[in-house]
Amino acid sequence: MALRVGVVGGGQLARMMVPAAVELGLDIRVLAEGPGMSAAIAATAEGDYHDLDTVLAFAREVDAVTFDHEHVPQDVLRGLVDAGIAVHPGPDALAVAQDKITMRQRLGELGFPVPDWAAVHDADELRAFLAEHGGRAVVKTARGGYDGKGVRVVSGAAEVEDWFAAVAETGADQALLVEELVPFTRELAQSVARRPSGEVVAWPLVETIQRDGVCAEVIAPAPASAGRLADAAESLAVGIAETLGVTGVLAVELFQTADERILVNELAMRPHNTGHWTIDGATTSQFEQHLRAVLDLPLGATGSHDPVAVMVNVLGGPADGDLAARYPAALAAFPEAKLHFYGKAPRPGRKVGHVTVTGDEVDDVVYRARAAAAHFDD
Amino acid sequence: MALRVGVVGGGQLARMMVPAAVELGLDIRVLAEGPGMSAAIAATAEGDYHDLDTVLAFAREVDAVTFDHEHVPQDVLRGLVDAGIAVHPGPDALAVAQDKITMRQRLGELGFPVPDWAAVHDADELRAFLAEHGGRAVVKTARGGYDGKGVRVVSGAAEVEDWFAAVAETGADQALLVEELVPFTRELAQSVARRPSGEVVAWPLVETIQRDGVCAEVIAPAPASAGRLADAAESLAVGIAETLGVTGVLAVELFQTADERILVNELAMRPHNTGHWTIDGATTSQFEQHLRAVLDLPLGATGSHDPVAVMVNVLGGPADGDLAARYPAALAAFPEAKLHFYGKAPRPGRKVGHVTVTGDEVDDVVYRARAAAAHFDD
Repeated sequence: MALRVGVVGGGQLARMMVPAAVELGLDIRVLAEGPGMSAAIAATAEGDYHDLDTVLAFAREVDAVTFDHEHVPQDVLRGLVDAGIAVHPGPDALAVAQDKITMRQRLGELGFPVPDWAAVHDADELRAFLAEHGGRAVVKTARGGYDGKGVRVVSGAAEVEDWFAAVAETGADQALLVEELVPFTRELAQSVARRPSGEVVAWPLVETIQRDGVCAEVIAPAPASAGRLADAAESLAVGIAETLGVTGVLAVELFQTADERILVNELAMRPHNTGHWTIDGATTSQFEQHLRAVLDLPLGATGSHDPVAVMVNVLGGPADGDLAARYPAALAAFPEAKLHFYGKAPRPGRKVGHVTVTGDEVDDVVYRARAAAAHFDD
Repeated sequence: MALRVGVVGGGQLARMMVPAAVELGLDIRVLAEGPGMSAAIAATAEGDYHDLDTVLAFAREVDAVTFDHEHVPQDVLRGLVDAGIAVHPGPDALAVAQDKITMRQRLGELGFPVPDWAAVHDADELRAFLAEHGGRAVVKTARGGYDGKGVRVVSGAAEVEDWFAAVAETGADQALLVEELVPFTRELAQSVARRPSGEVVAWPLVETIQRDGVCAEVIAPAPASAGRLADAAESLAVGIAETLGVTGVLAVELFQTADERILVNELAMRPHNTGHWTIDGATTSQFEQHLRAVLDLPLGATGSHDPVAVMVNVLGGPADGDLAARYPAALAAFPEAKLHFYGKAPRPGRKVGHVTVTGDEVDDVVYRARAAAAHFDD
C-alpha cells in the first residue's frame, strides 16, 4: 500500500504538494476548509481545523499529518499527538511559528540573531520603545499576520490604536510585537528540511524582493552570496531547525545588513513562497522534500538544474478575472517559462500564481521571468 | 475559469498528466474505467469508454478531450466530433494508431520508411511471406497489443494458429500483420508534439532498450545520434505528425539499421514510455506538452536540463507487493534519483513505476538509474 500523507488546509501550498505526491506514488489527502479550495483535487474531507474530532477523524486514516498553514490550534495539535498520530511539524516547534512574540523570545534565548524587539501591551510601552529607537519602529500583531497584513511601520502609538484595542479585548497576556527598523541592504531566505530521525538538508540561499510587504520575486541563488554569507545562513537555519526540533521544511526569512550581518526576520514551518523556485529549478522541490521529511523518508538532493532560477509572483491577476485568456500570449512569448496557477480567482493583491525561469545570467533570467509574469497583470 | 481538459482512461499516462495540469492551473478530469485506477485522484466519472453516451456526458463538461490510450472505438470518437467536442488526437489520426495494418498501409503510401510487411489472412499467406523473407518473421495482431503482447517471432504458421483462429472468428476483413525481422543495431524513439493550429516541436532523439518486448530503459539523447541521425528522425516524426494531422504527443518508435537507415516500428499518439524522462530531464515534459497541445496552447521548450537523462522502468516490483518498504533504502542511496510510482499493485512484468536520473556522463547516469530502480526489484 502506498504511504499516506494528510494535509490540513486546502490552500496553494497543499495544492503544490499534490504533484510531488502523485509522482512519488504517495497517497495524499487534504482536509479542506470547504469546497473549491486550491487543493480541491486531493480533498478527501472538508471541515474545521479548530475542531479536534474533525481533524482526528481525518488523521487516523493517514501515516503522517502535516499542514498547509500554521494556524491549527495547539490543543488540536496536542490532541493528535496524544492519539498517537505522527504530526510534523509537531506542536512544540509550531508554537514558535504561531506567535511572533514567542518566536523572538525563543530565538533570542537560544542565541540566534534577531532585531531588537519588545512585547508592548499599551501605548506607553510602545512610546518608550520608539524613544529608544530613533522614533520609528515596526509593529506586528503576534498572530495571524501574513503577506504584509498585521505589519505597520509607525512613528507614534496612535497609529496602532486599533490593534491595542483588539489586544485589550482578547485578554491580559496579549501584546503587540515592536521591532527596530533594521537598516537592511536586502532580504534573503534560507530553506532547509529536516526529518524526524534527524537528517537535515539545505537549498541554496536566495534573495527575496518584497513589494508592499509581499514577496514579489525570488532570485536563486542570492547574487554575491557564495562563501561566508551562504555558510552563515545555512548554519543559522540548520541550527534553528535542530534546536526547535522542526520537521518538514523550515524557511527562515533574513535581513542582510550593511555590515554583512544576517538577522532572522520570520520563520515558516512549511513550504514557503521563497522556495517555489525549487519546483522547476532544483533536483528536489520543497514540496517533494516536505512530504519525504514528514514521512521520515531520506531527503533528496537540493542542487540546482541551472546557474540561476528566478520566481516572480502573479499578484492580483487581470481585473476581468480571466487568467486563462492570458495563457496564449505568455506561453508563446516565453516557451521556456514555467507557469504555475493555484486555481484561485483573481483579486487585487492576491497571490494567484507564479512564474519561474531558469538560465545562466541573472539579468537575463530576471527580465524573462518578469516579462512572462507581466502577461497576467491587470 | 480554468481551462478544462478531459482524459478518457484512468491509467498511468492520465495519472502523469495530473501534476502538469495542477502546476499549470488547468482543471483536469478523468473518465476512469472504475475505482482505484492509477489516475483516481482526478477521476470525476467512471464508465465504459465504448459507450458514446457515457463519453459524451463526460466530454460536454470540458474544453478538450484526450486519451490515456488508443482504444476508444471510432464510432465513439466520431460521435464526439459530431457533437462539436474538441477531440485530440482526432479520429482520423487515431485510426492509424489503432490498427497496425492500417498504420503500415498509410505510412507506406505516404512514403515513410517501414519494414517489409504484409497483411496475412491464413497460414498459406504467412508461409508465402516467410518463404520470401528467409524463413523467420514477426507476426503481430493488428489491434490491442502492447508491451510485447500480441507480438511473436515465428518460423512457421503453426506458431500463430491460435491467432488465425481468433481472426477467423471475428470476421472476413481481419488479418494478422507479418513483418520482416529488421536487422537493427538499436532501437530509437522520437517524440514530437503538434497542436491543432499547426505548431510542432520535437524533443531530443532517444535510445530505447527493450527486454522481452517491453521498454526497459531510455537514454536521452541517444548516444552518438547528433547530426544526420537526429535530423532524420526529427523530420520523419514531424512529417508523420503533419501528414496524419496528429494533435498532442506523437511517439515514433524506430529501428536503426547497420547501414544507418531508420525505419518506423510503431506509432503512439499520446505520451509514451520513451518520453517519461522529460518529466525530470526536459524544460517541458511530454505530459505538460500534451495538455498544452490538446488545448491548442503554444508549446513549450523541449531542451534538456542536463547533458544526459536515463529512465529505467520498474517492472513487476517486489513479490510481497510492498513498494513503500523499498523507498528508504532507494532514496538514501540515490538522493538525486527521481522516483515515480503509478499507484498500481506489483505483479510480474507490470510497469509499476520508473526512475529517472540526470547528469553529465552516460555510463555514470545509466549505472545510477539502474541501481536506484533495482531497489524495487523482487
